[in-house]
Order: sequence, then structure tokens, then C-alpha cells
Amino acid sequence: MGLPVEQIVARLGGRLSACGDVTIVGVAPLDQAGEGQLSFLANPKYRAQLARTRASVVVVDEATEVPPGLLAIHTPNPYLYFARVVALLNPPVAHAPGVAASAVVAGAVHAGAHVAPNAVIEVGAVIGEDAVVGPGCVVGRDVHIGARTRLAANVTLYAGVHIGTDCLIHAGAVIGADGFGFARTDDGQWVKFPQIGSVRIGNKVEIGANTTIDRGAMSDTVIADGVKLDNQIQIGHNVEIGEDTAIAGCVGIAGSTRIGKRCMVGGQAGIIGHLSICDDVVISAGTLVTKSIRSPGVYTANLPLQTHADWVKNFSRLRHLDTMAQDIRTIEQRLDKGESES
Amino acid sequence: MGLPVEQIVARLGGRLSACGDVTIVGVAPLDQAGEGQLSFLANPKYRAQLARTRASVVVVDEATEVPPGLLAIHTPNPYLYFARVVALLNPPVAHAPGVAASAVVAGAVHAGAHVAPNAVIEVGAVIGEDAVVGPGCVVGRDVHIGARTRLAANVTLYAGVHIGTDCLIHAGAVIGADGFGFARTDDGQWVKFPQIGSVRIGNKVEIGANTTIDRGAMSDTVIADGVKLDNQIQIGHNVEIGEDTAIAGCVGIAGSTRIGKRCMVGGQAGIIGHLSICDDVVISAGTLVTKSIRSPGVYTANLPLQTHADWVKNFSRLRHLDTMAQDIRTIEQRLDKGESES
Amino acid sequence: MGLPVEQIVARLGGRLSACGDVTIVGVAPLDQAGEGQLSFLANPKYRAQLARTRASVVVVDEATEVPPGLLAIHTPNPYLYFARVVALLNPPVAHAPGVAASAVVAGAVHAGAHVAPNAVIEVGAVIGEDAVVGPGCVVGRDVHIGARTRLAANVTLYAGVHIGTDCLIHAGAVIGADGFGFARTDDGQWVKFPQIGSVRIGNKVEIGANTTIDRGAMSDTVIADGVKLDNQIQIGHNVEIGEDTAIAGCVGIAGSTRIGKRCMVGGQAGIIGHLSICDDVVISAGTLVTKSIRSPGVYTANLPLQTHADWVKNFSRLRHLDTMAQDIRTIEQRLDKGESES
Repeated sequence: MGLPVEQIVARLGGRLSACGDVTIVGVAPLDQAGEGQLSFLANPKYRAQLARTRASVVVVDEATEVPPGLLAIHTPNPYLYFARVVALLNPPVAHAPGVAASAVVAGAVHAGAHVAPNAVIEVGAVIGEDAVVGPGCVVGRDVHIGARTRLAANVTLYAGVHIGTDCLIHAGAVIGADGFGFARTDDGQWVKFPQIGSVRIGNKVEIGANTTIDRGAMSDTVIADGVKLDNQIQIGHNVEIGEDTAIAGCVGIAGSTRIGKRCMVGGQAGIIGHLSICDDVVISAGTLVTKSIRSPGVYTANLPLQTHADWVKNFSRLRHLDTMAQDIRTIEQRLDKGESES
Repeated sequence: MGLPVEQIVARLGGRLSACGDVTIVGVAPLDQAGEGQLSFLANPKYRAQLARTRASVVVVDEATEVPPGLLAIHTPNPYLYFARVVALLNPPVAHAPGVAASAVVAGAVHAGAHVAPNAVIEVGAVIGEDAVVGPGCVVGRDVHIGARTRLAANVTLYAGVHIGTDCLIHAGAVIGADGFGFARTDDGQWVKFPQIGSVRIGNKVEIGANTTIDRGAMSDTVIADGVKLDNQIQIGHNVEIGEDTAIAGCVGIAGSTRIGKRCMVGGQAGIIGHLSICDDVVISAGTLVTKSIRSPGVYTANLPLQTHADWVKNFSRLRHLDTMAQDIRTIEQRLDKGESES
Repeated sequence: MGLPVEQIVARLGGRLSACGDVTIVGVAPLDQAGEGQLSFLANPKYRAQLARTRASVVVVDEATEVPPGLLAIHTPNPYLYFARVVALLNPPVAHAPGVAASAVVAGAVHAGAHVAPNAVIEVGAVIGEDAVVGPGCVVGRDVHIGARTRLAANVTLYAGVHIGTDCLIHAGAVIGADGFGFARTDDGQWVKFPQIGSVRIGNKVEIGANTTIDRGAMSDTVIADGVKLDNQIQIGHNVEIGEDTAIAGCVGIAGSTRIGKRCMVGGQAGIIGHLSICDDVVISAGTLVTKSIRSPGVYTANLPLQTHADWVKNFSRLRHLDTMAQDIRTIEQRLDKGESES
């Protein structure tokens, strides 16, 4: 119940502004924190809150001075430090090793793993040490789940999917369903292209609720170490996502597209198939990416919000942009002609 | 099997245009209804169908006259009245109280509640009177489910989620998964910010299939009474949605955004994080909201549909809008100069 | 383990370029294939790879000549042929008939069907010959599942849904949840319109992971034979989709819209409600369809990707398009006036 601030600094580093016999029992934003709570300042726009906060300790950068009487921990990246304090104070719920009586297990479960009620683990699957398979999860044939990886409830892993260590997969995620691949006959019918690749997911990957990652058509779909995927993302067959790339909710990535390392993709963005996005690219929310990106930087294609009346007025012009451009050209020619005549 | 029209009026109000010994056995649109069926007219564009309908009874507003021989119920809001008749004729399927043998229950279930096969209810959870937990649902530790709230199949509620009374949560919905919160290290890796808030959902809330609502980072995500959410909506951590707001399918709302009361959000719209939308705002389908909205009204940002050929012609101009605007300015200056000289 | 190439041609047709005692053990793209593997050339841009491929056999069209020493199968549609070879080499995993001990079955299951662990089949449901109900699936009351139709894991079918033969429904799909229908009271509250229609799905339909198809309000939502739906698609109540239409991931289709036969809808496209789209229409990715389409062809409404800096420069003009158009008009009038005066 609580952690003395000096123990926090002993474990996480940082410089304490003064000695202080303070025990931290919780965390909160600056404007909500009270006695025994630790807060942080990362965004300068909240600096004014420092003077008024009732937090017992604040995490700030090296340069920030705090009001007298307020204890500070100075560190180069206050938000990162704060996240680590929250983790110290809120260790994940421990799961007792063992397999629930109602689970149906045909695969191999490490003695240190936890398999929750009504989970199904098919033949050939391997569940690693200290891994957690949540209630209602379905782990297909020959799936590999690495050590300490946790599946929340009702996750589905299709046959052959390989997941590394220290991953967290949220409820309702589906990994390894068939990619969307069909050949078309002359009369417009679709013949299924069997999806015989699989999905390989690295270590320390987080996958959000109801996110779907399809298996490859011939080779594998690949998610590298450290990738973070939010909820309701759709990843098509044979997509490859590089290390430490983070993707926000509702993004769709079509088949065979490759995304580099350390990219950030905003919510509801889309990336069409067979593209290549280099490392360190940032895609803004709602942006549809329709061509490959070769240079790091921020890319955007979305529309400014307007009142509906303004939208009607301005956007009816969008159909006539080409005409407008031609009108400007014509006017310029008339002017040129007029001036040369005068 | 059927309800006399006079009983309907006795229960729901409205004015019957004539006495009529008619028993209603079903409902249908005006153009499909037949003997024994009740229909309605709300949208004036279907008025011509009144003359031809073979319905036995129609629900219309006060001013509408119906052809001779057709029985009418007059009421100020015909569609609302009609919805209530449909509900009278189609009461929800009753679920017998009790816990299925295959359910795994560690929490407290009210004697009047129904827990379906293969549901899992973890320790500390409380299931209220006449509540329904559908097959395959997973109700986490310390979850609270209010009286008469129904979960369809395969719903996942994470630990600590609180749901009010009279809610309906559709299959595959996931409530309380971790918000998407990470701090970044200097070398571009992500450190998880533990999501220690929860989700609080009011009364009479409907949540669509495969919709996801994340738990808060430090405080709670909050969905107020009467909110209606369609399918595949993603709601980020610490979002707050006001009473009676209705949101259509595939909408994404990023973290910490607050939406007012009685708003309506069209399908596939998106709202970025940390915004504030006031009461009585309507967002059109497909619109990305990138700034706060302070005045009620309708807001839109989407593109007019064009043939692909027109799109190529017009939208290539979008990259050059700034140049076009500057060209116009230059032309005006040339004209001004020319006139002042002449 | 492997199939002689002459047997492949005997079964699937096509013309072998030479006699060859080759056994095919697998398939791969041209640039990855090796000894014993079969590949194909469909897209002319990969033609150069033909010279370098180490595949044992390539499937090509009638006109394409292959380098000496490379065996070819000539056929009018190489990709279609290739898909069929892949299917020959990779027959779907067979499921032994029978009901798992942990399944909870109140409906009627054909003796040749397979019901996996922890599936729930409610009263009145009928499961056809050689059908597969995957682990954790919930099949509601009075559902009909046709012969050879397979449900992957954790699929939910609500009461009364009717599914034809030879369908494949991926994990997490939800079919038959309530459509989003509410009547509004004068004070802005929503009264549920009971959704008393159902969903009818034809034969040879594939439905992607976490896709949702709502039941109709009064009549049924209808998906015709041969329709292919990718992951995370949302289909509203009373939508009708015609034969052999294919829809990519993350598409949303609002209520009562009718889509014709052989249409193709790109990823993240949206179609608003109550529209009619004719046969053979192609909708580009990310396009919002806001009006009915009466002629076959390709339709597009999405934005060109730009660097964020260019976007800021150009898109700020979008709010002033109407002013720009008026400025052009004014300039033309000044020019006309100037010329008539001179």
C-alpha cells in the first residue's frame, strides 16, 4: 500500500529536489491530484497548474522549477518516468498457473502458464512459460505462444500463428483468418485463393480489441518486435510492419504493403495495398495513403471541418476545379493579349 | 396472437379515426402491408402510398386524412407510435432465470438473472435482477451489471467495468480493454502506460456488435444514460459521451474527447482526441472532426462522389489550390494596375 | 506429397508446353519459387522475372513464351488457374463428424457435421451435412446452416438467421444483431424500434473476421450467392447485396441500401443509407457514396496524399473555394467590361 518516494527514485532514477518522507499511494493529473499522489508535467501548456496542484510529488524535466513546498523528481522525459511509476504502483494482476477445468486443451501448456475457463487449445499448440490464455480464447492447431504473452478474453488465433514473448492481445482480436484473395472467372464469379501463409508476431507487441490480422496468401504476414496496434485495426495478408511502429484505432492496411520502423499512423487512416512506407513516417488521422512514401516526415490528406452550409457552398466547387483552373488560364491569356495590344 | 386496435390505442394513446373491430397481427411498410397489418406514414414522400395500401390500420399525424375504408390512428409522432406498436407485438424473448450448467461463475448472480451456456463470470462481479448474460460472454472481476441489462453472445467486459440498468450490449462488443497509451523512449521504443481507470456506462444504453470502449488511463471513460451506439464503433480512453447521443456504425472517437448531449454522429465519422463537442451537434457521415465545436448545428467534411475520370481531372487540382489562389490575386493586381493606368 | 504436373493438367485443363516428368510440391511467387514449385505470371510488370525464375513450372497465358528449359502451362487466365492448383495442393483441413463433449447443443446437428468444443447451438437451430461449427461459436434459436458451410471460431449467429451452403464465416463475425433503429421523442430520447426482420445469406458466401451484418427492421437483410466480404465490414439493416459482389475490409454500408451484382467496393469505402447501386459498379478505396449510382463504371472520392506542409498550404483554400470561384467570375466581368469600353 504505497511506495516511499525515495524508493521510487532508487528504482527508476531521477533527481529528487529535496529530501522528503513522502509515501506515494496513487497518481493523478496535476489538477486532480491530492495528498499522497504523484503527478507530472510534460506538456508546457499545463505549466500554470504546477502552482496550484495539491499533488505530493511532481515529475518534471531538469529545467522546471517547482513552487516551494512541492517535492519534484527531475528527469529528462517526465511522461516516460510517470508511466514507469504507474506501472510500479499497479502491477498487472497475477494469474495462478494451471488450466481451468472447463478449458479444452489438446496442445502443450507450460506448467507456469494460466489457461482460463472455457478456453480451447487445439492439438499441436504450444503455450509458453507464464503465458496467459484468457477465458473463451481459441488457440488453433500448431499455434506458438511465447513466454509471458497474455491473451485477454475471446481472442481467436488460427492454426499455425506464431506469437513471440511479452505480447498483450486484447479481447476479440482475430489473428490468422484468411486473407481476402480470390481469382475471378470470365463470368464474374470468385474462386478462392487458399491462404496458405501464416502470421508471425514478434516480441513486446500489443494488439487492440477486435483488431484483425490476416494470414499470408503464400508467405507470412509479419509484425515486428515492439509494434503497438490499437483497437479495430485491419491488417491484410502479407503486410509487414517494422519495429516499434504504432498504429491508432480503426486503421486499415491492405495486402502486401510494407511499413517501416518507428512509424506512427493516426486513427482511421488507410493504406492501400502493395505500397512501401519507409521508416519514421507519420500519417495523419483519416488520411488515405495511395502511393509509396520514400522520405520520413508527416503526410496528410483530410478535409477541414465546416458547417454544413459552408460545406455545401464550397464543396460544390470541387466538381468544377478543373474548369476553374482553365478559367484562370484563359483570363491570363486575355490579359497578356490585352497588354501586348495596348 | 394479435392485438385488437382498440387495445393498442388504450395502451399507447392516439385517436382512432373510426370504430373498427380489427385485430393487428403484424406490421409492414405501406407498400407491403396486407390484411391484419398495421403500417405508418411519417415521411411525406410516401404519402401517395396511402391511397394504395392494403394495410388494415395506418398510423398518421393529426393532419393527414386517409382514404375511406382505411382505419387510422392519429398521433403527433407516427414513427414513434409505430415503434411502440412493434414493441407491443414483439416482446423480447424471455430468458428463464438461472445459471446454465456449463457457465463458470465465481461472481454473484441475482436469482432472477439468466446466465447462458459457456459464460464466464469472474470473482467479485455482480449480475443484477433480470439481467441476461449471453452464451460465451466473459464478465471480468468486479464488474457490475445493472438490473434488466442484457448481454448478447460473446461479449467481453474487462475487470471493474460498471454498467447500469436496462442496457443492451450486442455480440462481440468489448468494454474496458486498455486505452492506447504509451510513453516513448529516446530510441523510439514504447513503454506502456498502465490503464488504471475503468468504464462507466449509464442506464438505457445500447451498444452495437463488435463495438469497443476502452478503459480510462487514470480516470474513467463515461457513457451517459440513453446513449445509443451502433456496430464497430471505437471509443478511446477517457472519452465522455453525453445523454441521448446517438452514434452510427464505424465511428472512431479518440482519447479524452467529450461529446455533449443529444448529438448525432453519422457513420464512419471520426473525432480526434482532446476535443470538446457541445450539445445538439450533428456530424455528417464520413466527416473527420479535427477541432472542438462550440455551437449546435450540422457539420460536414466529406467529398462529392464523381466518376473516376472526373475525379482524376478535378482532384489533380487539389495539389495546386494555393497556386490557383495566388494566380487569382496576381490577375486582380494586374487588372487594378491596368485600370489605374488607363 | 506432391502432384505430377501432368495430373494437374489432366484435372484443371491448360496446355503443357512440353512433356515433363515434374512433380509439384508447392507454389511460390516467380522470384521466390524453386525446384518442385509452380509459379505464375498474370501481371505483365513481372514479365522480366520469367527469365530468372527457378520455378519448375509456370502458369502463363496463351501468348507468353517462356525461356528454354522452363515448363509452362498455358491457359487464358493464369491467376485463376494458379488459385486452382493451390487449392488442389492444399485441401482444407478435414473435420471429423461429431459433437464435442463440451459443446452445448439444443438444436439439430446432421450426423456428418462437426461441432467444436465450447460451441453453443440453441433450440430449433439446424446444422447441415458436413457443416462445421467452430469452437466458441454461438448459433441462436432457429438458425439454419446449410451443407458444407463452415464457421471459424467465436462466430455469433443471432436467432433466425439463415445461411446457405458452402459458405465460410470467419472468426468474430456477428450476423443478425439488431439494426440501428430508434424513434425520437420530443425531448430527444430514443425509443427502440424492435428489429423483427432477419438475415438471409446465400450459397458460396465468404464473410471476414469481425464483420457484422445486422438483421432487418421489418423484412430481411439479404446477401446473395457468391458474395465475398472481407474483415470488419459493417452492413446495416435491410441492405441487399447482389450476386458475386466483392467488398474489401472496413467498408460500412448503411441501412436499406441495395447493391447490384458483380460490384467491387474498395477498402474503407462507405455507402450511406437508402441508396441504390447498379450492377458492375466499382467504388474506389476510401470513397463515401452519398447518392445512388445508375451506370456501371468506376467512382471515386478520395484525397491526394501530400506532405503535411503542402496540405496546410493547399487545403486552407478549401474553405474559400466559393470565394475563389466568385473572384474568377468578377475578374471575367471586369475584363469583359474593359474590352467593351476600349
